[in-house]
Amino acid sequence: MIAATYAPMHSDLSLNLEVIEGYGDFLKFNNIKGAFINGSTGDFVSLSTNERKNIMKAWSAHRSEGFQVINHVGHTSLLEAVELARHSAGLADGIAVIAPYYFKVRTLDQLVQYCKEVAAAAPQLPFYYYHIPVLSGTYFKMHDFVQLAYEEIPNFRGVKFTHNDFVDFQQCLQYKRKEGKDLELFFGIDEMFVNSLSLEGQGWVGSTYNHLAPLYTEIYKVFELKNYQRANELQNMAVQFVQILDGYGGFNGAGKSFMKLLGLDCGPSRFPHATLSEKDLKNAQLKMEEYGLTAPNFSKCN
Amino acid sequence: MIAATYAPMHSDLSLNLEVIEGYGDFLKFNNIKGAFINGSTGDFVSLSTNERKNIMKAWSAHRSEGFQVINHVGHTSLLEAVELARHSAGLADGIAVIAPYYFKVRTLDQLVQYCKEVAAAAPQLPFYYYHIPVLSGTYFKMHDFVQLAYEEIPNFRGVKFTHNDFVDFQQCLQYKRKEGKDLELFFGIDEMFVNSLSLEGQGWVGSTYNHLAPLYTEIYKVFELKNYQRANELQNMAVQFVQILDGYGGFNGAGKSFMKLLGLDCGPSRFPHATLSEKDLKNAQLKMEEYGLTAPNFSKCN
Amino acid sequence: MIAATYAPMHSDLSLNLEVIEGYGDFLKFNNIKGAFINGSTGDFVSLSTNERKNIMKAWSAHRSEGFQVINHVGHTSLLEAVELARHSAGLADGIAVIAPYYFKVRTLDQLVQYCKEVAAAAPQLPFYYYHIPVLSGTYFKMHDFVQLAYEEIPNFRGVKFTHNDFVDFQQCLQYKRKEGKDLELFFGIDEMFVNSLSLEGQGWVGSTYNHLAPLYTEIYKVFELKNYQRANELQNMAVQFVQILDGYGGFNGAGKSFMKLLGLDCGPSRFPHATLSEKDLKNAQLKMEEYGLTAPNFSKCN
Amino acid sequence: MIAATYAPMHSDLSLNLEVIEGYGDFLKFNNIKGAFINGSTGDFVSLSTNERKNIMKAWSAHRSEGFQVINHVGHTSLLEAVELARHSAGLADGIAVIAPYYFKVRTLDQLVQYCKEVAAAAPQLPFYYYHIPVLSGTYFKMHDFVQLAYEEIPNFRGVKFTHNDFVDFQQCLQYKRKEGKDLELFFGIDEMFVNSLSLEGQGWVGSTYNHLAPLYTEIYKVFELKNYQRANELQNMAVQFVQILDGYGGFNGAGKSFMKLLGLDCGPSRFPHATLSEKDLKNAQLKMEEYGLTAPNFSKCN
Repeated sequence: MIAATYAPMHSDLSLNLEVIEGYGDFLKFNNIKGAFINGSTGDFVSLSTNERKNIMKAWSAHRSEGFQVINHVGHTSLLEAVELARHSAGLADGIAVIAPYYFKVRTLDQLVQYCKEVAAAAPQLPFYYYHIPVLSGTYFKMHDFVQLAYEEIPNFRGVKFTHNDFVDFQQCLQYKRKEGKDLELFFGIDEMFVNSLSLEGQGWVGSTYNHLAPLYTEIYKVFELKNYQRANELQNMAVQFVQILDGYGGFNGAGKSFMKLLGLDCGPSRFPHATLSEKDLKNAQLKMEEYGLTAPNFSKCN
Repeated sequence: MIAATYAPMHSDLSLNLEVIEGYGDFLKFNNIKGAFINGSTGDFVSLSTNERKNIMKAWSAHRSEGFQVINHVGHTSLLEAVELARHSAGLADGIAVIAPYYFKVRTLDQLVQYCKEVAAAAPQLPFYYYHIPVLSGTYFKMHDFVQLAYEEIPNFRGVKFTHNDFVDFQQCLQYKRKEGKDLELFFGIDEMFVNSLSLEGQGWVGSTYNHLAPLYTEIYKVFELKNYQRANELQNMAVQFVQILDGYGGFNGAGKSFMKLLGLDCGPSRFPHATLSEKDLKNAQLKMEEYGLTAPNFSKCN
Repeated sequence: MIAATYAPMHSDLSLNLEVIEGYGDFLKFNNIKGAFINGSTGDFVSLSTNERKNIMKAWSAHRSEGFQVINHVGHTSLLEAVELARHSAGLADGIAVIAPYYFKVRTLDQLVQYCKEVAAAAPQLPFYYYHIPVLSGTYFKMHDFVQLAYEEIPNFRGVKFTHNDFVDFQQCLQYKRKEGKDLELFFGIDEMFVNSLSLEGQGWVGSTYNHLAPLYTEIYKVFELKNYQRANELQNMAVQFVQILDGYGGFNGAGKSFMKLLGLDCGPSRFPHATLSEKDLKNAQLKMEEYGLTAPNFSKCN
Repeated sequence: MIAATYAPMHSDLSLNLEVIEGYGDFLKFNNIKGAFINGSTGDFVSLSTNERKNIMKAWSAHRSEGFQVINHVGHTSLLEAVELARHSAGLADGIAVIAPYYFKVRTLDQLVQYCKEVAAAAPQLPFYYYHIPVLSGTYFKMHDFVQLAYEEIPNFRGVKFTHNDFVDFQQCLQYKRKEGKDLELFFGIDEMFVNSLSLEGQGWVGSTYNHLAPLYTEIYKVFELKNYQRANELQNMAVQFVQILDGYGGFNGAGKSFMKLLGLDCGPSRFPHATLSEKDLKNAQLKMEEYGLTAPNFSKCN
């Protein structure tokens, strides 16, 4: 499991980079194996290019054998993405890009071309495509994409697959098996974690691994024991967690605010994401307890 | 597993009801536990109300302890749906309706109201909602629907869930567990069969259970043995089956034509579905063999 | 201007065909030049095939030099559409079909093929395509369609164009001019009537021509005088009319109920359309008066 | 008419700011009354914040009584948008923002809040909302927006309306008339210019006013003379212009390349937009001539 991290901020909305040291320790303590930084959870679209570089630098110190840092460098501007990729060169364990999300690419070839140019700016780093069509508006089948990416991009390594097209996901896996590729497929919809357990993905990248790592570890364990009913019950808790917080003006901002209750104050959210008041946080927590998401689930994280 | 059945036709596109006797035997031989008739696979929108009644009558003879016949009676016209429901009364083991698909309902209440009126026309039969938003254009969360349906519809029994929103599916299951309801949730995307195995659904309704029942039985078995890799490989064969046939002008028509190779000639398809020539069928079969979908897989069905 | 007519009903929702005699007189009195029957306004999807035939028969008596009756015969089932077309042969001045709206056609060729088969069932009648992508889900450019339709369908005559793609509309017009075709283009969004006035369409088909014919005639006149401001003000009244009624559970049903205030009781609406109570009608009328849609506008219609 | 301007570039894709001096003269010569800079035509999403500032500075020199410069300062990051607005303060005649296009606002209130914060950063400048839902994914009715914007944003002045919802456009106009507001409504779909002529908009903003100003002036004239047929024919030429260039990998890039033929070399396009070769330009021009878009139409522009 890799956590899609938040961008910690001071109360004036400037970056609070000091939090990152503790952030990494917190994740490692919870057996999280890496950080996917400057992604959607990290509000990359609300950060300047310089801020994204500073976040990269701060996380770089956390790299270790068992903890990899993947920097999302996607941007509507290919030039900015290339600059961020180049900057990541000595600092990250991998880079990722989303498809351009204002002017969309028209063809799969164009998408691969875009990825190729960014990947070439950090040729020694593994390159991942960040597939999140609900936000990017770009819906190509990854089964087609990975075949072309292997041909065109020497450092292509895999996909962060944040989409509920399990058929496409399975066909990517099948391609990998058949061709003997070292393709890495990170599944990115936390609410469907349990559904992905039999799919042989190498990993998971998501924002609720920030909050609920012990819960997911438990799901994994009971699934291994074929106790599907319990696995589904626990998964449903994770779903409730997201839905309750989403009720406070959207999950992104609420989830970031909620980190405070876990002892890691990531500060407020930039527009358009909500920042929860102490009272809202309290209420959210009470609602969670009704669903059995009791404090101990969280305290284990500390 | 319940098969969504085709509407057998003569070469002049009139109904060929005699085929249905053998059709039911064929499904039972393959351990299929029922028939979902007059659904999308059965081209209900291309049939007249009389034809739908005749198909109902023909299938009625197949009802038995271990084989239930669910008649889809949905129609853009509530009056026609009510008439079909009434006609099903002594003939079916259950009825189902899709949401109105030309003028859409505006609210969940309206949808429940529609279902309630149809269900009341066959009050002694279990009533199912046929959730297939990609075709109906109606996207309400089933988690909300089932709660309201239980309150309003005495004979409400469940949902044929043909949608890839596993979160919603899980929440329905959770509702069922928590409330002790006898809710039946049939999962309806055959290509994601393997993904649904840990979800505690009571069953599956789909069109490829016409063709590939032994394959799905095998997937079920190896999944139980936690051989997820093999389960995924086999699932991928089912996906290949659909994709290859879809390449011949669409899966609906091609899948119907393909029944002939299994020894059950369902005849041609009505507009806009394709009918495959002998040559196309041959070619499709050859392509399948490349993917390991060899003849024995099918011959087992006979 | 051609009115898209309602299907008059008794209070028990059965057809009230006797109303049609007065209905036609009412339209002619308002200088309406024809009736587009069994269309979306006429709730064709909520009628049985027999009911559609009966409506056709009842309207047939109204045909005259200056008043044409176009029967919409579209259906998800090509066979039903063909039957309705054949039945229209001696009864209508033209027939129209919508694209199949459950299983969609995949290609423009398929759409033309569908139209061709229906058109051939009434070869002596002008054939129109009913382009209403918001409801049919089929979005082909009419500029492409009309060229192919001319080649393939001997009795092809035109399009009821209910879409706000004015570029496509203009290109159809340009094609007509350039090729010297007798293409008829009926514009079908009443709320954009004023926008279409400079577009050289031959006509308009819409549901508010049932209620507001004198208002549209006035818009036409002031537009001719280049008093665009007044034309827009009047057009805005028509928009208000639709929006106010739409607030009562949807325009289709509310508009049908409103006919009663004009002295033509079309009865209640079938599901899912609303039927307005006397009180709602009164309130709707009061709101209209606030916008200057005073009674005289309507009384002129009587 | 206001031109949505391109961002001129050197062959290495760096900005070529020197071109802007001639660019402004060229537009003025063609009776264009202003420049909408850093918009979609100007590829704002492919520019860094610094580049956008430099373009602003370069255009500032062109401001004059009869030529206004409106700077689009929209960004997914509110902070960047605010910074660009502040920078525009002494340099522009107005600013505009698009809705955030990655994380979308959930409510109209949020959208107004976003606009309010940007507008407050340049309180002495007229503020415009850039309504282009096809690209922004934000579809609120402008009729609702303008009412709220007037209440909340002191320097709110109008909307660049790039959408084919003429009903909404008309209702904005009606609001303006009724309330006596000084609302400015710029219509932004060049291909529907002729349709907007009777709509009393104050102006038009579009990219083809770069190329075809004399043609649009002619359309305006013949429309005034009520020669609608000729107006439509000329409009159709403008449509052909867009469609022909769109055939070369998309209009944005092709239109920019085409400026060279008018004597104003704006250079190549950034990803994902195409840059046309000399040969492609030649071919495009030949195709245009087939449609009567002969050289003289363009040479007039020089």
